[in-house]
Amino acid sequence: MKQIKLGLSAWRMGYHIAAWRHPSVQPDGSMDLSHFKAVAQAAERYRFDLIFMPDELAIRGEDNPEGARSRGSHVAELEPITLLSALAALTQHVGLVSTGSTTYAEPYNTARQFLSLDHLSNGRAGWNVVTSWGKEDALNFGHLAAPDYNLRYERASEFVDVVRGLWNSWDADAFLRDKESGLFFDPQKMHVLDHKGDHFNVRGPLHMARSPQGEPVIFFAGDSEAGRDVAARAADVVFTAKQTLEDAQAFYASVKGRLAANGRTEDELLIMPGLMPIVGRTREEAEAKHEALQNLIDPLIGLASLYDRLGDLSDYDLDGPVPEPKDPAFRSRAEVIYKLAQKEGYTIRQLYMALASGRGHRVVIGTAEDVADAMQEWQEGRAADGFNIIPTHLPEALDDFGTLVIPELQRRGLVRTEYDGTSLRDNLGLPKRGL
Amino acid sequence: MKQIKLGLSAWRMGYHIAAWRHPSVQPDGSMDLSHFKAVAQAAERYRFDLIFMPDELAIRGEDNPEGARSRGSHVAELEPITLLSALAALTQHVGLVSTGSTTYAEPYNTARQFLSLDHLSNGRAGWNVVTSWGKEDALNFGHLAAPDYNLRYERASEFVDVVRGLWNSWDADAFLRDKESGLFFDPQKMHVLDHKGDHFNVRGPLHMARSPQGEPVIFFAGDSEAGRDVAARAADVVFTAKQTLEDAQAFYASVKGRLAANGRTEDELLIMPGLMPIVGRTREEAEAKHEALQNLIDPLIGLASLYDRLGDLSDYDLDGPVPEPKDPAFRSRAEVIYKLAQKEGYTIRQLYMALASGRGHRVVIGTAEDVADAMQEWQEGRAADGFNIIPTHLPEALDDFGTLVIPELQRRGLVRTEYDGTSLRDNLGLPKRGL
Ligand SMILES: Cc1cc2nc3c(=O)[nH]c(=O)nc-3n(C[C@H](O)[C@H](O)[C@H](O)COP(=O)(O)O)c2cc1C
Ligand SMILES: Cc1cc2nc3c(=O)[nH]c(=O)nc-3n(C[C@H](O)[C@H](O)[C@H](O)COP(=O)(O)O)c2cc1C
Repeated sequence: MKQIKLGLSAWRMGYHIAAWRHPSVQPDGSMDLSHFKAVAQAAERYRFDLIFMPDELAIRGEDNPEGARSRGSHVAELEPITLLSALAALTQHVGLVSTGSTTYAEPYNTARQFLSLDHLSNGRAGWNVVTSWGKEDALNFGHLAAPDYNLRYERASEFVDVVRGLWNSWDADAFLRDKESGLFFDPQKMHVLDHKGDHFNVRGPLHMARSPQGEPVIFFAGDSEAGRDVAARAADVVFTAKQTLEDAQAFYASVKGRLAANGRTEDELLIMPGLMPIVGRTREEAEAKHEALQNLIDPLIGLASLYDRLGDLSDYDLDGPVPEPKDPAFRSRAEVIYKLAQKEGYTIRQLYMALASGRGHRVVIGTAEDVADAMQEWQEGRAADGFNIIPTHLPEALDDFGTLVIPELQRRGLVRTEYDGTSLRDNLGLPKRGL
Repeated sequence: MKQIKLGLSAWRMGYHIAAWRHPSVQPDGSMDLSHFKAVAQAAERYRFDLIFMPDELAIRGEDNPEGARSRGSHVAELEPITLLSALAALTQHVGLVSTGSTTYAEPYNTARQFLSLDHLSNGRAGWNVVTSWGKEDALNFGHLAAPDYNLRYERASEFVDVVRGLWNSWDADAFLRDKESGLFFDPQKMHVLDHKGDHFNVRGPLHMARSPQGEPVIFFAGDSEAGRDVAARAADVVFTAKQTLEDAQAFYASVKGRLAANGRTEDELLIMPGLMPIVGRTREEAEAKHEALQNLIDPLIGLASLYDRLGDLSDYDLDGPVPEPKDPAFRSRAEVIYKLAQKEGYTIRQLYMALASGRGHRVVIGTAEDVADAMQEWQEGRAADGFNIIPTHLPEALDDFGTLVIPELQRRGLVRTEYDGTSLRDNLGLPKRGL
């Protein structure tokens, strides 16, 4: 039976917007190596294939009303590549995937950092390629706004080619290191990239040996046409946020369908939607866990989460109806969620709570069987090759998943019980890669 | 008594040009975390204040003749910030200093990486600021040559200001993390940098808490007037390469003399020249160790080390006299070393050997007493506050220094026997710093 691949979002203190206020959570965890050490070692105990670190290059949300800003926990966190390098020394098997921007970095530096993480971990590194859409990110790099969408994707595409080119600077057997003859390497097995492109001129070669897994694993989360094209050409894994089986199936078919034109087979690219599991021994317990978290959402944060679509609602009754969007600047962006509120009969508070839990990702609340069923259905329905598991709060919700759902998945033969290789490519069942 | 500060150059497999061929050396050590783990843990056992990683952004020496290139070990190494992040998890006390370029990086990224390393290590990070002079480095970043010297230093100076500004984004007590009220931070204690300069526009704030040691420690190795000025203004520690007491004293006086004008006292900046110790239980043993290493220098590498000053000497007898420089392109650069060869009566082989061992740094060959004397003389003579110890090969030459010289220095009360603080600033006796 084909196995479900498992990633773990190990971000901050969890993905739920109020995670840091949960009684079980260490509220300065996102600045503390020991927090992440506990999370990574738990992930390994539960036999996850990889842990994943998102990244932003600024404090986002600067347009939010004053009061909301000082209630957000996203203002202080470790840098993910250094963090994962430390975790490389504290783990043995789990893959270490960091996000890295193609808009505000140089490919030579990025190629080095990820390949170095790969060597430090004996072949467990992955790079989640993003183009950094945020205005706040731009302002920290001398731009007034993020470069235009197409430009960002063109640059990203060339950036990835350069990085992969640099990762292929040396054949696996290039280094002789022969003390007797004094020959350190075989010059026939060194490759000078000499890239000259629209965005970059990079000579190379990279001054680092080839990856133990051929190349670090490339992740991509683009959803647009341009994003799917880049993914089909260059990525090994695609992350996505999909709420329904139909949407996920359509996305799956769309991305897999682009592989053949790139001379690649379906097995060479894995699709892993996000999944936020809220697990209890009973459904009631799971619901109660969810509600406890939802009640920790400060109304100012809740309103702020609606702000960029519905404008400032702070003068309205939280437990009254959602007002019709008036400001024309908001109208088009507001439509989808205003319709949702009307359809469900949500109050303002109910609306922000509904949006808050998964923040775009599928949420499954229930027993171990419910969550395992939800996963199996998508995998069997060609909607997912695996899941990026997104705990609400860390490490508690991870332990719920690990102690309840993982044994159920193992019983069904859907996930492994032991690691059976050494590299992240081994974990994911991906072939060694190289140009 | 004032104590001598001790840094350890933990680069590659050692600093000697033939280190990798030494029988005790693991020839792929510079790609292997376990090599550096052994070195860093030894440094801690010997109570070093810090370990130091130089860095280059390319394979340098591309003009060298073909045969020399494939005999050099500098073509494959780990990236230092990721490496030190892994070592942060494997050590407790020793400072972790990485080189970082101001020419081919963005200050927001650099500020994050070093401050993250600092948090991962509980306040043990340092940044050695360099401007990357190499042509080969430039070619990996879309330039045909390194930017002009003055431009590089202007950019470096502004770059350091931006990084320090970002490190000061938050007061030490800015984060409340009050689960009850929901307040995560005190907005009065957040500082938006809003830097607008000739080279950079960076808004900030950095999305990371302030350093446990106030700010990471800044190292600088500039030797020119411009370099000394930047150091006197912004650095905590200056590395330098000086061969004679007189040169070192003049440099020491020159840099320390610039502090008052910057409103700083002499204690706020430490000067640490490089020192390559070759230690034996007797002088004869030390000489023999040196000779054994020198004999491992491949003649092609030796000739290559003369190439950029004397041109191609491969048609001459290695054991014959050094020919007078003919090529006018080489004449001015050749003068100093041609005079040295004449004065000492060196053959070609003897000349490259003489230059090869310390590669610009002071070499002391002798017993533990000899080395301790050499260190004490410079410290008492106001030529050094400490030394950057540069082992010929790792870890063996480090162990020679640690087991022979360290006890002698401890007996003299010149270095500590136990760590007495937690941060790199504590190790170095530097005050907490902040803007
Ligand atoms: C699971 C997942 C993780 C993502 N992580 C990041 C991230 O860490 N940083 C970031 O700037 N964008 C992140 N994104 C945004 C994507 O890179 C991308 O911009 C988005 O999915 C929209 O696709 P498009 O750019 O093709 O329109 C993430 C998206 C998903 C689905
Ligand atoms: C101990 C020491 C270490 C250095 N490390 C590096 C390094 O890692 N990378 C680099 O590009 N330059 C390095 N340099 C070069 C200096 O940054 C500087 O360019 C050089 O000392 C000349 O000074 P100037 O630039 O003011 O002329 C180092 C110099 C010294 C003395």
